[in-house]
Amino acid sequence: MQEIITFIMEIIGTIAFAASGAMVGVGRRMDIFGVCVLGVVTSVGGGMIRDIVLGIIPPGMFQKPVYTIVATATSCVVFWVLYLKKELVEGHFREIYDRFMLIMDTIGLGIFTVVGVNTGIRHGYMDNTFLLVFVGTITGVGGGLLRDMMAGVPPYIFVKHIYACASIVGAVVCVYMYRSFGTVAAMVGASAVVFLIRYLAAHYRWNLPRLKRED
Amino acid sequence: MQEIITFIMEIIGTIAFAASGAMVGVGRRMDIFGVCVLGVVTSVGGGMIRDIVLGIIPPGMFQKPVYTIVATATSCVVFWVLYLKKELVEGHFREIYDRFMLIMDTIGLGIFTVVGVNTGIRHGYMDNTFLLVFVGTITGVGGGLLRDMMAGVPPYIFVKHIYACASIVGAVVCVYMYRSFGTVAAMVGASAVVFLIRYLAAHYRWNLPRLKRED
Amino acid sequence: MQEIITFIMEIIGTIAFAASGAMVGVGRRMDIFGVCVLGVVTSVGGGMIRDIVLGIIPPGMFQKPVYTIVATATSCVVFWVLYLKKELVEGHFREIYDRFMLIMDTIGLGIFTVVGVNTGIRHGYMDNTFLLVFVGTITGVGGGLLRDMMAGVPPYIFVKHIYACASIVGAVVCVYMYRSFGTVAAMVGASAVVFLIRYLAAHYRWNLPRLKRED
Repeated sequence: MQEIITFIMEIIGTIAFAASGAMVGVGRRMDIFGVCVLGVVTSVGGGMIRDIVLGIIPPGMFQKPVYTIVATATSCVVFWVLYLKKELVEGHFREIYDRFMLIMDTIGLGIFTVVGVNTGIRHGYMDNTFLLVFVGTITGVGGGLLRDMMAGVPPYIFVKHIYACASIVGAVVCVYMYRSFGTVAAMVGASAVVFLIRYLAAHYRWNLPRLKRED
Repeated sequence: MQEIITFIMEIIGTIAFAASGAMVGVGRRMDIFGVCVLGVVTSVGGGMIRDIVLGIIPPGMFQKPVYTIVATATSCVVFWVLYLKKELVEGHFREIYDRFMLIMDTIGLGIFTVVGVNTGIRHGYMDNTFLLVFVGTITGVGGGLLRDMMAGVPPYIFVKHIYACASIVGAVVCVYMYRSFGTVAAMVGASAVVFLIRYLAAHYRWNLPRLKRED
Repeated sequence: MQEIITFIMEIIGTIAFAASGAMVGVGRRMDIFGVCVLGVVTSVGGGMIRDIVLGIIPPGMFQKPVYTIVATATSCVVFWVLYLKKELVEGHFREIYDRFMLIMDTIGLGIFTVVGVNTGIRHGYMDNTFLLVFVGTITGVGGGLLRDMMAGVPPYIFVKHIYACASIVGAVVCVYMYRSFGTVAAMVGASAVVFLIRYLAAHYRWNLPRLKRED
């Protein structure tokens, strides 16, 4: 049961992150193959880093083709939709594009954070809260960070409201819920916490202090 | 015999990728030391990632200095040639520079793809076609990707014709030829397939669909 | 005794690199959370890469929170100082900012280089000089490289005088002093060599040959 839930969440996260990667690729005017590469990197990148630091060798996505296939298919769909509806990338409908990008990225962030914590727990690090939170956060933010670094755009993690913060809070919630309520409740609950934090941050335009540019 | 062929191909790939890294470094006006660093990273980077994901710890290039020494020497030669023949970097002869860069990068891509597949097979993953193709592709494109990300130029993998595609096709060909014809035929044949795909793509200016910029 | 010295040096290096990462983050106008992320990545990034290539799984900084906590605290302090003293980031006092950045980065480079060599030796690679030098250099330059790639600024390693060069010389000195004089002398002595090389390079504006831009 909990394996099925975990797998479903992984697939949802893979689709969401692949879509976000493909959207960045189309926005950068890459060809369909570059778009697919960026989609795949975004969706499997965080998990690859996680597996390497946990010593899961070779990393899961090298062994099971399903994630790569799903990510490639998602990227192709996103490419063709944006290719046929060019006005979504530029012009008046740009707002819809930005909103969809935010939603996909948030879903990926929330789900991969709890998947990362869950992987850490299943490999015997239940008692090491710090490691679990660190691994969850890296899994959550890793794919998007690779996406932005490879595409040469300013990383989302630095420019968007409360990004890594949402992932860290979600990971902490996941670890503590895991110990009290079991796997499924922890994964669903903690993902929801990440979504909520990012929704509130985007909706109310929460801003943390920063230096302003002089004008 | 096949170890000698493998070693010779590794050295050729190292020289080719080191030259491509050094050329990017000179083009970015780095000093001779930066040029060498970029040459070394380009030539050993893909193999380092491959060894980490296959659990070959510490990675091969940390153990055998020969690859680093060859890459450093190649980088120095490239630096001095371009330093004395400045007109190759800017001006009328720029086309020769671009063509040489394409050739070096293609040789590195083809050879490191098959070297990556070969390393995966020697570590017991013969039956896992997906993993072998993934590992081959990462070995092939990894060095050039690190090069471009570190130098702050748009990654070749996203901007050049059929780049990752050639590597993936080459890896698939390598795996299947390996099973039927043995190591040497697979490595030479699959490298040739990569060269051929990239040559045809560059010559006939194959283009995959992409969104155009509005003008 | 030597464990205490190692730990103190690691903490000093962590503070120095966290400060350099936070300064880059503030200079890029990131909010306080982005500044902390960049500070943490800069200070633990090099060690994480080192531990992965040496097979220390999970990497040390995932197990001991102290480095992350120190890096976060340092980043917050740097943020608030620069927030209250905005004139340090722009305007006449910019020179003080640049000088402080150079000092912090040099301290981090020197200390993490010897910490990297030391970690390699403690894991049984005493006889492999090449591997020790490689690991020391990667530990030293890795954090700053990740910082610059994530922040989208030209990597220090390519633009500053004699950067990787100082780290390599320091690592070689460390390995040979280790064999003759023991841990503490090697770590303190080799760090001092790195500081000295970078100080001399910055003071006398040593320049290695490079192609000039045409004007």
